[in-house]
Amino acid sequence: MRPFLPIAAAGLLIAAAPAPKPVTPNDIVAGAPASAWIQIPADDLLVLELKSGGRVVIQLAPDFAPVHVANIRALARSGYWNGATIYRVQDNYVAQWGLNESDKPWPAGVTAKPPAEYTRALKGLKVRPLGFADPYAPGAGFVGGWPVAYSAKGGWANLAHCYASVGVGRDLSPDTGTGGELYAVIGHAPRHLDRNIAVVGRVIDGIGELSSLPRGTEALGFYKDKAQNVPITSIGLMSERPAADRLVYQYMDTGSASFARYLRVRANRKDDFYIRPAGGVDLCNVNVPVRRKP
Amino acid sequence: MRPFLPIAAAGLLIAAAPAPKPVTPNDIVAGAPASAWIQIPADDLLVLELKSGGRVVIQLAPDFAPVHVANIRALARSGYWNGATIYRVQDNYVAQWGLNESDKPWPAGVTAKPPAEYTRALKGLKVRPLGFADPYAPGAGFVGGWPVAYSAKGGWANLAHCYASVGVGRDLSPDTGTGGELYAVIGHAPRHLDRNIAVVGRVIDGIGELSSLPRGTEALGFYKDKAQNVPITSIGLMSERPAADRLVYQYMDTGSASFARYLRVRANRKDDFYIRPAGGVDLCNVNVPVRRKP
Repeated sequence: MRPFLPIAAAGLLIAAAPAPKPVTPNDIVAGAPASAWIQIPADDLLVLELKSGGRVVIQLAPDFAPVHVANIRALARSGYWNGATIYRVQDNYVAQWGLNESDKPWPAGVTAKPPAEYTRALKGLKVRPLGFADPYAPGAGFVGGWPVAYSAKGGWANLAHCYASVGVGRDLSPDTGTGGELYAVIGHAPRHLDRNIAVVGRVIDGIGELSSLPRGTEALGFYKDKAQNVPITSIGLMSERPAADRLVYQYMDTGSASFARYLRVRANRKDDFYIRPAGGVDLCNVNVPVRRKP
Repeated sequence: MRPFLPIAAAGLLIAAAPAPKPVTPNDIVAGAPASAWIQIPADDLLVLELKSGGRVVIQLAPDFAPVHVANIRALARSGYWNGATIYRVQDNYVAQWGLNESDKPWPAGVTAKPPAEYTRALKGLKVRPLGFADPYAPGAGFVGGWPVAYSAKGGWANLAHCYASVGVGRDLSPDTGTGGELYAVIGHAPRHLDRNIAVVGRVIDGIGELSSLPRGTEALGFYKDKAQNVPITSIGLMSERPAADRLVYQYMDTGSASFARYLRVRANRKDDFYIRPAGGVDLCNVNVPVRRKP
């Protein structure tokens, strides 16, 4: 039988009632209103289907590397990448794919020598500042869902090399690469590549298909034997698919109030597991939320 | 027949001689004198032999987490880990191994409730400062080969969660974990875990064996089916092996002139591939050099 609770004990009960549960980044993502999400155009999505059955979806960044992105779209549409493989997987660095040293001619619409789209003008970009120091640039923050480094004084901005960023393989400067050979970052952010390579996008779905591949044993992570190269069945744009077969993705608007809260909580984890919130976060540890359209 | 070279032409030849090749981080590692290398004691090396044939070598950090490291040594020596597996692989985060929710009793020498060795006193540590801002702590640098964050004002230092760092799995606070369940970082540095978990070491050889494992599909990257767990044949200390079978590793003394140069070049890549040196580097992108004893 339940005993009568004297006032003191009742007071104790109140004191012992659970404190409001601290908000997690996942809570903010789950609770963000529809208005906080922006749909990615199907023409900005490059899809790799692997022979293993895995799928890798890449969001392209035409606002940062328009000529390289135009090349990538032309390469995809023309079927240039028939027979492409992942031929380089270097631990804590990159997985790289394409035709690798092919002399196949470029299809129509490909600019063979694109400009160095390593930075773009800061002007015209609406930046949500990270709010913490960045060792690689005077400023760091987010523009339209992308992590960027920038200089107000220099007037430039660049897409940052974070986990899952996709860049354009190239030879030594002044070559900038066409986009025929691409890599995705599969380790700690190699930010020293910022402003030295054209970043053209990021993997938004299926990065684990690349990051879990066997590491190549040759210099720079190339596979020793071509038989080890990982076959890619197709590389195409989402916009090439019939509407019914398209996957629709959204990213969290980095200008939204939801993202502002998300960023604040990423820098100050207070949920059950955490005892000491960091009070800061680095650009590549924020991870702009991306989801399939619900 | 070799023509006579007039002075002007000879001058031209000198002008056309190749400029001295910019030094790379690898050049500095290759050229560092023997005095720049420090041998790791065999009792500080934990070796995982995987059933696949892969080997993972971990350097333990008794100067930072002495009770947890003593536990790990006792667990290894007692054969506690017989039957251990890697049961959790979460992309861009951690691979975790042990017996996972076993009720096997702790062997002799294991402290069941270790203190929270999340930080240690800064006093007594000789720090080589990183020289660039760190968003996670007032200071960042290197102590005895380890990347550390610290506060001169607070008087504390902690091992940073970088790629390949090894930490102790635990339940919610105040539990600190015994060391029976360990994880290695296989993605971008999760520095928000700093000062919330005991870091006990780092993988110095074979991290690719962990980072290339299939990702678990359950919440937090646990494998769905126990049959997917990756078998570990043995976990032991290098010091338990006969002297002839021991692998000997060295790390670059972070107090050495070689490391000072290495750090400077990591922050300012000028070799052929690089057009714009970053002028900075983050703590976890420095990668203290480790090698097999030549």
